[in-house]
Parts: sequence; C-alpha cells; structure tokens
Amino acid sequence: MKKIVIVGLGLIGGSLALALKGFEDYTVVGVARRQTTVDYALSHGVGDDATLDTEGAIRDADVTFLCINPDDIVTFLARHRDGFKPGSLVTDVCGVKTAIMAGAEVLPGTVDFIGSHPMAGTEFSGIEHALHDMFHGAHYIITPRAGSRKENIALLERMAHYIGCRDVVNTTPEAHDAIIAYTSQMMHVIAASVCDDPSLFTCKGYEGSSFRGCTRVAALDVALWAQLFSLNAPALVDCLDVLLENMKKYRDVIASGDRGKLTEMLLYSSDRKRKMDLPGPDLLH
Amino acid sequence: MKKIVIVGLGLIGGSLALALKGFEDYTVVGVARRQTTVDYALSHGVGDDATLDTEGAIRDADVTFLCINPDDIVTFLARHRDGFKPGSLVTDVCGVKTAIMAGAEVLPGTVDFIGSHPMAGTEFSGIEHALHDMFHGAHYIITPRAGSRKENIALLERMAHYIGCRDVVNTTPEAHDAIIAYTSQMMHVIAASVCDDPSLFTCKGYEGSSFRGCTRVAALDVALWAQLFSLNAPALVDCLDVLLENMKKYRDVIASGDRGKLTEMLLYSSDRKRKMDLPGPDLLH
Repeated sequence: MKKIVIVGLGLIGGSLALALKGFEDYTVVGVARRQTTVDYALSHGVGDDATLDTEGAIRDADVTFLCINPDDIVTFLARHRDGFKPGSLVTDVCGVKTAIMAGAEVLPGTVDFIGSHPMAGTEFSGIEHALHDMFHGAHYIITPRAGSRKENIALLERMAHYIGCRDVVNTTPEAHDAIIAYTSQMMHVIAASVCDDPSLFTCKGYEGSSFRGCTRVAALDVALWAQLFSLNAPALVDCLDVLLENMKKYRDVIASGDRGKLTEMLLYSSDRKRKMDLPGPDLLH
Repeated sequence: MKKIVIVGLGLIGGSLALALKGFEDYTVVGVARRQTTVDYALSHGVGDDATLDTEGAIRDADVTFLCINPDDIVTFLARHRDGFKPGSLVTDVCGVKTAIMAGAEVLPGTVDFIGSHPMAGTEFSGIEHALHDMFHGAHYIITPRAGSRKENIALLERMAHYIGCRDVVNTTPEAHDAIIAYTSQMMHVIAASVCDDPSLFTCKGYEGSSFRGCTRVAALDVALWAQLFSLNAPALVDCLDVLLENMKKYRDVIASGDRGKLTEMLLYSSDRKRKMDLPGPDLLH
C-alpha cells in the first residue's frame, strides 16, 4: 500500500481523511498534536490510522497534505524540509497560496510541492465537525510550480474527483490570492462587520435566509482567518475599497430619494448576478 | 366553504396559494392580472381556483391576502376600499409595514386589516417558481392595529402554522421596519454591491459557499426592491452607515498590519455571531 499522510486533523484535515479513505491503493494516516484527537480519529474511522509521530509519518508518505494554519505550514516546511520521502508529493489545503509557495522554496528538489485549495468548509472547527462529503461540488484549486511533475498533478486531480469536487482549477499563486480576496476573504469581513451592528441581538425572529446566508461565516476560526487576512492584506484591502465605494453609492442614492437612479443601479447589479450564474458559453449553443 | 383570496400570483402569492390549500374549511382562490397566470394556476393546482375578476373575488372573500408590490398595495387599498366583504380580514405579505399600515387607514371600520410579513422568498420571481414549502421554518411577522380582532389574529396564526412557519412574531410597523432594514434590506444592498465589483465574472471556479450565500439575493426583483428600499430609506441608510463604519475599521486594521488588533476584532465579531446562534436563555438551564 502507498501512503497518504494528513498533517492536522481539524475540520478540513479530518474531512479529507474521511473522504480519501479507499482511494486507489493508498492507506490514509492522520497526524495530530493531541492524543485525544488521535483517539477520536481511531474510534470514528477518520482515516485508516492516526498517530502523534509526525517525523515517522511523513518519512514514508507518498503524499503529504498539510492541513494546518498558514503560518504553521511555513514553519513546518522549514523544520521538516529534509524529512519528506524523496520523490513524494507534498501539498496543503490553505486559503492563501503566494506565502505558502514561497515557504515551499526551502524544500529539496526531490520533493514536489503543489499548492492546493479545496474551496470548502463550514463555520465550525475541529475533527468532531469533519464531514465525509465536505468537498462535494466544491472547486479544487491547484497552484503547481514550474517543475511540478505531470503525474503528481494528475494524482491530485484524481484525489479531488474522488473526494467529490466539481472540478480542478489550475492557476498561479498570485492569481489565486487576488481573486480569493474577493470571493472568500471579503465575505468573511462582510459577515463579521454585519455582526458588529448593535442591532444583532434584537434581530431574532426577524431574520430570513438572506441574513443567515450572509452572516453564517462570521463564526469563524479567529487564528486561521487573522493569518489568511494578514498574508493577503494588499489584495483584500483593494477589494474592500471597491466594495466600500459601491456600497456608498447605494447608500447615497437611497438617501437621495432618486428612485429612477436606484432602479437603474439595481437593474445593473441584478443583471450581473444573473449573467454570472448562467452556464458558460460552451453550454449555451 | 369560506374563502381565502390571494391577490397577485407571483412567487409569494403563488407559494401561499399552494401552501394554504386544504386549510380548515376554506377554499383558496387566486387573482391574477394575466390570463396566462390564471391558466398556469389552474393547470398546476396553485390554489383551488383562479380568476381575473378582482372585484368579484374580494367581494365575498373572508380573508384577502395582497401579494403585490408595496406601491400597488397602497393603490389597491384606496381603489377597493369599499369592495371588501364587511367583517373580513385583509392582510398582505410585504417587507415594509409602516407605509402599508398607513395605506390601510382608508379602509372602513368593518374591514380588519392586519399587516403580515412571512420572512421567506428566493431570488426568483413569478408563479413558475412558487414552492409549496416556501414558508417552512420561516418567521411570520404580524403588525395588528389597535382595533384588530383577536379572532383574526388567531386565524392568521393558524394559517402561519399551517403553511409551515416556525413562529408568529407580533410587533409594530415601526419596530418591524427598523429591524428589517438591517436583517433583510441591507443584505440585498450588500449582495448587489458585491456583484458590482469588476472581478465578478472572473471569479468562476473560485467561489465557495460563503460567496454563494452572500450574493444569492443579488438576482433580485428590481421593481419590488426599489420600492422596499425607498419606503424604508431612513432606517436603511442608518444601517448602511453603521456597516460602512464597521467595515472600514476592518479595512484599516488589515491595511495597518496590526495582527493583534485584527485578532481582537475577529474575536469580538465571531463571539457575537456564536452568541446570536445560541438557544435562548430558556433553553440553557
């Protein structure tokens, strides 16, 4: 049997360990920092095996997934740079890619590091909230390096499909971070900001699906998201500036009482959203 | 049989006609402006009957639901003030209440008008998107008048439970509008503003559930939402000013690179969201 090692059995690592079980001729081994997590994984079948022994696990891993916080990934790569099996694939699951790919520069040429970002998650943390179907329908983004081996990219694609992802999107770390600032990080800033309103606790009984949809992710993992925001600060600040400006325009037109102009703006925005949701050009003929 | 008349067979009126079928000893009759809508309702069982004849329908309705746009409700009440059955209950389903309750002042004392706002909906419009389970789990808000009859409030409550609502919340039009500006209207302004970002169309393949959750409602019914925003402009502008300020604070701390302060802010916001989602004090002992 070949071996997949998952370092970090939190929400995403745990879900990956559940979802990857039975993949081809691989056994799935989770690595945790606490015995209670190892015990939980073993008793709940999160992966095929679990251990506290990081060095021992990665030494003969054919694939290593780093499912820890971004700062910890960079530290881990530096500390274990010579501890990975030569010829193996190392990847991660984290929501920023430029900082991670830079951190992976410490690895020897015998180890193939390809960045991964499966776009899935919930507002919960920890192995007890892991879900075997966490990745169903999600995009799986990869950021290979110039020297990444084709067979490793193909292996990641097979794993992504096995865990239920909708597609695999291949891009650069810089392009990833620029667009993720908009599609993911900014959504978390919006949700947190909405919850800072003094009215929050009086709104029970008056909330509908739009409120729940917007604010769900405000109950975020603080350490993780502080790192993600910080490691992608310039792109995130740019997006927020655009949003603040666009929202201010709505605020001003609503305050002005100009219904004609408001209607025009809503036609523009709603039309963009409908176009965005249309199937692509290849599906339209 | 007693008669419930639903004026306006759009998304909400159509869903209500589906959901109210079989309620006690009432027959459900839909009123539409177009023959195609009447035909659709008749052939798809949206209500027990459907007609173009507004006057005839409301003349012997025991309950009339006005499921049309807010401006049209005010016009309808003025035009048909003497057309409702004496002793009957008239209500609506619209997302602002102060303007509607003011419009209802034209009615004679023999007609009991109670405002309703079932907090449900989707981003689609029209009878063909109506759902029999649209109201499952939703809050049903009512704004009775000082003279509203107890038996009519009780009747509304029975109907709300019959269509699957989670609870019935009784409040004033002013309180409703102040909090709805925050929980509902502002969510639509956020969604529209996010979709105005030039990056929208390049984000395909990079969006996750947080993006879908936040932007879903941007594909809104423009005429309806332009009216809702305008009729509740002062409250909505106040909420937007608070949001703009809170979001600007996040923007500034992310730009500053002060991770300690960012962490502190995220702890505050995420803690509020978790507290908000906790069961109430009566469930915690």
